[in-house]
Formats: sequence, C-alpha cells, structure tokens
Amino acid sequence: MDVGRTVRRSPHAGQKEHRMKEIRLASRPVGWPTAETFEIAETATPEPGPGQVLIRNIYMSVDPYMRGRMNDVKSYMPPFQVGAPLDGGAVGEVVASNAEAVPVGAHVVHNLGWREFAVSDAERVRVVDPAAAPTLSAYLGLLGMTGLTAYAGLLDIARFREGETVFVSGAAGAVGSVVGQIARLRGAKRVIGSAGSAEKTRHLTEDLGFDAAFNYKDAPVREQLKAAAPDGVDVYFDNVGGDHLEAAISVMNKYGRIAMCGAIAQYNDTAPPAAPRNLASTIGKEINLRGFLVGNHSHRMPDFIAEVGGWLRAGKITARETVVEGLENAPEAFLGLLRGENTGKMVVKVG
Amino acid sequence: MDVGRTVRRSPHAGQKEHRMKEIRLASRPVGWPTAETFEIAETATPEPGPGQVLIRNIYMSVDPYMRGRMNDVKSYMPPFQVGAPLDGGAVGEVVASNAEAVPVGAHVVHNLGWREFAVSDAERVRVVDPAAAPTLSAYLGLLGMTGLTAYAGLLDIARFREGETVFVSGAAGAVGSVVGQIARLRGAKRVIGSAGSAEKTRHLTEDLGFDAAFNYKDAPVREQLKAAAPDGVDVYFDNVGGDHLEAAISVMNKYGRIAMCGAIAQYNDTAPPAAPRNLASTIGKEINLRGFLVGNHSHRMPDFIAEVGGWLRAGKITARETVVEGLENAPEAFLGLLRGENTGKMVVKVG
Repeated sequence: MDVGRTVRRSPHAGQKEHRMKEIRLASRPVGWPTAETFEIAETATPEPGPGQVLIRNIYMSVDPYMRGRMNDVKSYMPPFQVGAPLDGGAVGEVVASNAEAVPVGAHVVHNLGWREFAVSDAERVRVVDPAAAPTLSAYLGLLGMTGLTAYAGLLDIARFREGETVFVSGAAGAVGSVVGQIARLRGAKRVIGSAGSAEKTRHLTEDLGFDAAFNYKDAPVREQLKAAAPDGVDVYFDNVGGDHLEAAISVMNKYGRIAMCGAIAQYNDTAPPAAPRNLASTIGKEINLRGFLVGNHSHRMPDFIAEVGGWLRAGKITARETVVEGLENAPEAFLGLLRGENTGKMVVKVG
Repeated sequence: MDVGRTVRRSPHAGQKEHRMKEIRLASRPVGWPTAETFEIAETATPEPGPGQVLIRNIYMSVDPYMRGRMNDVKSYMPPFQVGAPLDGGAVGEVVASNAEAVPVGAHVVHNLGWREFAVSDAERVRVVDPAAAPTLSAYLGLLGMTGLTAYAGLLDIARFREGETVFVSGAAGAVGSVVGQIARLRGAKRVIGSAGSAEKTRHLTEDLGFDAAFNYKDAPVREQLKAAAPDGVDVYFDNVGGDHLEAAISVMNKYGRIAMCGAIAQYNDTAPPAAPRNLASTIGKEINLRGFLVGNHSHRMPDFIAEVGGWLRAGKITARETVVEGLENAPEAFLGLLRGENTGKMVVKVG
C-alpha cells in the first residue's frame, strides 16, 4: 500500500503492515560515541490516533545537546533510553491526519526525528510554509530552534546593544553563524568569531560579514582573541566552554555579558574539564554569566521569525547547511558534528 | 596646640607642625602579605582647604578587597602605591571644617582610613548619627559598606525571593553574617552558611538564626552542602570562590542565582586557582552568575538603612565585630582577616 497522502489503515484490519526504519540507542557511550552506540532497526510504521498526525520525515536535525541525553543522568531533558529510538528536531510532511488543524500535505516541524515516519499529537507540531524558506531544512536551522537560540541568547540573555563588540565561539556552527550575523545586522561595533579551520574562518569573514575570525587550533585562544579584540569584548556568546570562556573573561569589558549556550569542547570528556581559572575577575568587572536553554524562549518565536525572516527575504542573512543524505548516515552525521566537520547547520535528509 | 575641634592653622604660619601616624605600603606582597608589606610612618597632619574637613579617625575598616589593591594590576580600583598611605573605609569626627554642611563635631564615614587624621572634600563624606547605632563602628559594617553589599547582593543581584533556600559562604564574616540574617528576616525557606571553625558555625546557628552551618575544613564542601541542603539551593552568595562555588553549582536548583561578591580563598594565590569544573551545568539549570561591586549600588542606601536600621532597633538583627586596638596593629588585623580570624566585621580602633 501507498503510505502517501491518503492513508486510512489499521493494524487490526488484516492489511499488510507498513514498515519503517529508525535509529536507536544501542548502548550508552563512555567518552566519544562509536558505531556501537547506534543501531538501525525496522519497525511497524505507527498509526495516528485521535488528534494525531502521521508525518513522513524529510529532514532531521543533529545537535550537540543530544550527546548529553545519551548519558543516564538527570538533566533538563530526559536521557535517551537504550533500545528505544532517539529523538530530536525534524521537519516533514503530514501523510495521514486525524486533526483538522493539521491536514494531510501540511509541512510541520516536530520533535520526533531519527526515524522515517512519526506519529505526533497535532498540538505538538508547528506548521511551516515551505515557500517562505530557501529549503525546508531552514526550519531546523536559521528559522528554527538554532536560529531562535541565537536570537534569544544574543538579545535577551546577553542583552546585546548597538555599538557593542561581540565574540562568538563555534562561530561557523548553526547557532554561532546566526549570532554573528544578527549582531552585525543589529549594529555591532565589531563581530569576532572563532572556528576550527581556515576554511571556516574564511567563511565567517568573507561570507557572513564577521569583522575578524581566528582558528582556535592555530594558537592559544587568549592570545588570538586579544589581538582580534583590541578594545575588549562586551558580549560573549559561548558555545564551547573551557579555554574559550577563560579567554573571553580575560578580555571582557566592564559590565560584559556572557550567554552560556553550550560547551561542546567537553561533551565527550570523561574527566572534569578545564575550567575558567579567572572567574573571580568577573567580580571587579561586574560581569553577568547566564546559562540558558531555548525552550524557555519560545514566546520570542514571532519576533524572531519576523526579524530574521525579513533579513532572509532581503538577502541580508545567509545560512550555509551541511546536509548528509540518508537516515542510515545520521549517526555519522552526529559524530561529524561533534568533530566539527559541519559548516552551519548539520542536517540529515531522511527521505 | 590642640588638634581638637577648633583648629585654625597653616603650615606657613610658623606654628609648630602637628604630626600624625599613617600606615603605608612598603612593598608589594607576592602571595601572603608579611611584616615587610607595611610600614608605619609619621607625617604632617594635613590642613583642610576650601570646602574640606579635617577628620580624626576613630575606627577604620580592613576588608578583603584591599589585598587586590596591593597588586600593581589594573582593576576596578587603582592599586595602592608603594610608599604612599593605604586607604579604605573609616569613621571619625570632624575636628576642623571649611564646609558649612559638615561642621566640627559631626561624625562622618569616608574613605581615608589607615591614618590618624584625614582631610577630605566635604562632599565625599557621609554624616552619620552616633545615636542610631550601637557603636560608631557599625557604620563600617552592619550599617555601612559591608551591610549594603549584603543587601544589594542578596536582593538586587541574586534577586532572592521569600520561600527560597540561600547558601552563603564566609557566613561568619562581615558580609556573610548580614546576608544570612537578611535572608531569614525576608522569609527564606532555609539559610545555610559555611565558615572555618566550630565556634563560627555555632555562632551562625545559635546567634544569627541560620538553619544549618558547616565548617568547610571538616570535609569536602560539596558533601557537606549536599547534606545541609536536601532540597537544593536557589541563591548562592559567594564570598569564597573555588570549591565553594563548584559545590554550590552542583546542588543548585533550576533558575538559581549566584551573586559573586568575593573570592577570598584565592586572593593570596600566586598560581591560578582551582575553578568550578561544572560551570557547563549552569546551562541546563539556566543559572545566572553575576559579579558585582557595592559601588554601583549606593542608590540603595536609603532603603538599606531604613530596613536594616529598623531590624537593628527592633533587636532582630545582630552584628558581632572583631575590634583590634591601635592603628599600629592595623596590618596585623588585616592579615588576621585574610586568615579568617574575625567573626563579623573586622575593624581597627584608631583613636
């Protein structure tokens, strides 16, 4: 049978069961995830119940925070369960619907990635307009969770103001590349980014309009940042932690703000990470460090879509993506993300 | 001549010059200050110019932040100069005045301690009422800079709210002892303090109304704090840094706030300090860490005096002081402060 747009079926109706693929957590990694961490499995495509929709996933997101969910520790999101499918941001097309508000054919963003098909309560999906984005995958990046993370983190958490100098680490990544561009478009005095290759730093200055960028592998971050920020830094958007955070504190101006968004440098560490040894200097500088999660900032989605969507239509903001083809390659895409192989948002084309 | 209340003299008038003692920075310490750091010197008592007053110091303050000013590094206050007198909070009596608003006989708080007499612009002194405080020295502690630090840090920086659990380190010190009492009087669910001796922790629970206190020398801070705060901590007031800060982050509840006020554990370190290795967990908990200085909170002085002064008159708040007699013993008082020998505010009775 066709699993296209007009599915009306039931496992109890004696029809041949439709099958789909999903990626499961096979075992909890210690340190870096490996091939043993994941398994690809075939399972019955689920049926939408009352108020639910069946979604054919088109793109799925891989994000650094997923590494944390592979550990069996209490955190802000429940850990992934061994033997169960992973989940995370995805965008797809509704192929069966028991909810009027989300009809068959609608494109939706939802949180059940890592699988070919997903059933979700219609209330838990967000309908998006494919015509308003260069590709549907933009709703996982520039116009999605990572873009909103950049927007809320820079403007609400770090309270960036026109005329200030901004430093962002992981600047060629999904969040960092948007942070830098919003800062530029909102009138930053100077935007500085760090990344892990010469190709990425070139991308930052030549394509994204950063004023300065450096490769953190070339020399100590503190030295390179000091050279790139002769007048200091007012806002630091931290995707990395460790030596980057210490360096940012050391060059930070009085009343500086730090949005602590991620610490990818240490997600796979088994020992405690290097920590900023100069944290006490935040007293005299009266620096504010704030950890944040995008989940508490969904009320900003309308402002974000209006402003960033406007820049996108006007060609003022760009978002490179790194697209990996095929659900079966999602684990490798995730590992590549942790190794920093992506430029911009890393997504997997599921189907 | 009498340097009492009616001085009208000039060094050019051929009178015998009046002499006074002051403590100077003899050399910059590396690590802990020693006897070589200080020298006591005799000098001419200065003359008040137009708009100035001559003050006879009665009490002077020794505070941890003074250690930082002994280093020749750019910071939020200029470093002390070798060969010049130290300075800092003091309270005294005006003995000569060229300013109507601050007459002879007024008691004033000002910033020229470490000397027997001081000349200050009248605009830079604060007139206080000796009758409104148990002792004049209270204007250096409970009703002074350290009290305001506690008040602004707890209420404005950490945004403490009724029903929350508060942890304060250095809790038997000048700032910490006030933080804990304000939290209690403002309706904290639980107030926990750490200090460096059994006598101090007993003082916290028996005299100051803390719900729990522990001696950080007895066992790892993280273990003791966890036991003392079974429901976690909402607000941490940090006077210590290092392992205390790491422990506080580890037990902190979601949306916790940390007021970073001091880091006395490391002021004399010559090597980089142990740093909180769990700073990345502030992301998921969405913790806010704010460094602050009391200097930016003087607008809160009226609220502070009204509220804390009211508690003082009602006998609801207390402030033990450690008083060292004699200007010549001020260096030793300062060293004792760094060693944690004080309970409550450490002051020196100058004359």
